[in-house]
Amino acid sequence: MTSMHTGDEDIQSLTDEVIRSFDGTPNVRTKVIVTALVRYLHTFVREIEPSFSEWETAIEFLTAVGKKCDPVRQEFVLLSGVLGVSMLVETINDQQSPGATDSTVLGPFHMTESPSRQLGDTIDEVGSPQQLLVTGTLRSTQGDPLPDATVDVWQCNENGFYDVQQPDLQPAGNGRGLFTTNQQGRFWFRTVLPSHYPIPTDGPVGELLGATGRHPYRPAHIHIIAAADLHRPLTTHIFMPGSPYLDSDAVFAVKHSLVGDLSAAGAEHATQFGVDIGTPMTTVDLALSPAEFGATDAR
Amino acid sequence: MTSMHTGDEDIQSLTDEVIRSFDGTPNVRTKVIVTALVRYLHTFVREIEPSFSEWETAIEFLTAVGKKCDPVRQEFVLLSGVLGVSMLVETINDQQSPGATDSTVLGPFHMTESPSRQLGDTIDEVGSPQQLLVTGTLRSTQGDPLPDATVDVWQCNENGFYDVQQPDLQPAGNGRGLFTTNQQGRFWFRTVLPSHYPIPTDGPVGELLGATGRHPYRPAHIHIIAAADLHRPLTTHIFMPGSPYLDSDAVFAVKHSLVGDLSAAGAEHATQFGVDIGTPMTTVDLALSPAEFGATDAR
Repeated sequence: MTSMHTGDEDIQSLTDEVIRSFDGTPNVRTKVIVTALVRYLHTFVREIEPSFSEWETAIEFLTAVGKKCDPVRQEFVLLSGVLGVSMLVETINDQQSPGATDSTVLGPFHMTESPSRQLGDTIDEVGSPQQLLVTGTLRSTQGDPLPDATVDVWQCNENGFYDVQQPDLQPAGNGRGLFTTNQQGRFWFRTVLPSHYPIPTDGPVGELLGATGRHPYRPAHIHIIAAADLHRPLTTHIFMPGSPYLDSDAVFAVKHSLVGDLSAAGAEHATQFGVDIGTPMTTVDLALSPAEFGATDAR
Repeated sequence: MTSMHTGDEDIQSLTDEVIRSFDGTPNVRTKVIVTALVRYLHTFVREIEPSFSEWETAIEFLTAVGKKCDPVRQEFVLLSGVLGVSMLVETINDQQSPGATDSTVLGPFHMTESPSRQLGDTIDEVGSPQQLLVTGTLRSTQGDPLPDATVDVWQCNENGFYDVQQPDLQPAGNGRGLFTTNQQGRFWFRTVLPSHYPIPTDGPVGELLGATGRHPYRPAHIHIIAAADLHRPLTTHIFMPGSPYLDSDAVFAVKHSLVGDLSAAGAEHATQFGVDIGTPMTTVDLALSPAEFGATDAR
């Protein structure tokens, strides 16, 4: 063996060699993705010049993230969220036309099917004291009401927990409902005021937030997926106005257009929707883009 | 809620917002790493514009890599290997002086302590028929022999398996040995000719290699960590000349300077080292850099 020393040209030729190793990738899209991954990953590593111990820390972190995943906990989705990648993918894929309601992230809690409910029903099966009335209209971007469309909603309770996080305290389907709009494209239901809440912090993503001085909170919101024939499905949130953390959502999902209004039900609304006078209420007007080329890519 | 549409400026401002969220990171180095990660990760995502389904595939892949890890299998280390990241980190950290032997990757199989053995011992505890004699010298870059230094070696057997991969067929410590150089800085031991072998393919990294048309093989080699007082430890391989895959190592760890020689023991060597005439033998001359500023960063 002869002795030689390695330098910058070896580093560049290594990157080229790794990229060339993928030359035989049969699927063109796969090849584009893996070669771009190698290019950016190597550039990142060359910039930060990790020590062996930092590399080991990275390996251990990623391993711990994988180990933390189970059927009701997806730690890599949390990681994607806190690094802003989920919101970036959402923004890139937001193909709603001008005039349509903005989309935002799906989040990790749409893991069970929402129970079908009648307009006016409550999605609160526990009987929490703090009621909220939600009334809304689903329209096309042309302003036409969309009847017989589905509005799938899910939210945490007043303590910040989704049903799947508290199987002992909440019946499955609590805080969830699948509604169908009436002939005027309208929908309405009763629920509880959702709370702001921390994303789960008892795993490696929580450690990352702790080590970087970040808080784990999301502002209070209700999730919605609205879907109508011949229109693009819309995945979005209504954020509760005045909620803490509207300006620092741990997963960067707030768009100002998605912060709702909050008023108190007057006598007319109280009679019409069967709630007490003064019940907090929010109005949600959603506009869906036409489906183009049959591209209704539901998630 | 009012309707607004998002565009390129939203994407850039999202990246900026994510980077700003790490402003309060107490440790300066951590902050450098996480903000560089976000910058490259977002640029990568913006370039490839993943669909939701591609994002899900990435989440599922990373989760499966984490799930595959156990005490004797580190799938993220394999992933780091096949993407060339391990070799890149190795090259960046190769601080040996000019004139020193090149380093290469540690690999995932240095997971148990090698048994101490006497010079001339065999590390083959199974009695495999195909013997190999390894003789070598450990010197400083000034050419001075390094006595009482340790030479830790480990390798797979003639079928391409390390002891930890075949607990039923190989005793623990088979193919491993920790030797001490004599007063002339020399070391020698007997072993078997290692085989080229595939990295484990029964996990998601194997699926990645399959999907990208890559083979999983590493050329035949013996691992070495050499360590002497007042010198930088050296982690390297001796590759067997003529082995298949020397030009396409699945983990990109081959440096031409590390391909060894192979000859047949003559009468003199046979007598001196107690092997049959004609036994394959390889000579390994290693040179270590002086430790500067006490920086003997052993892995």
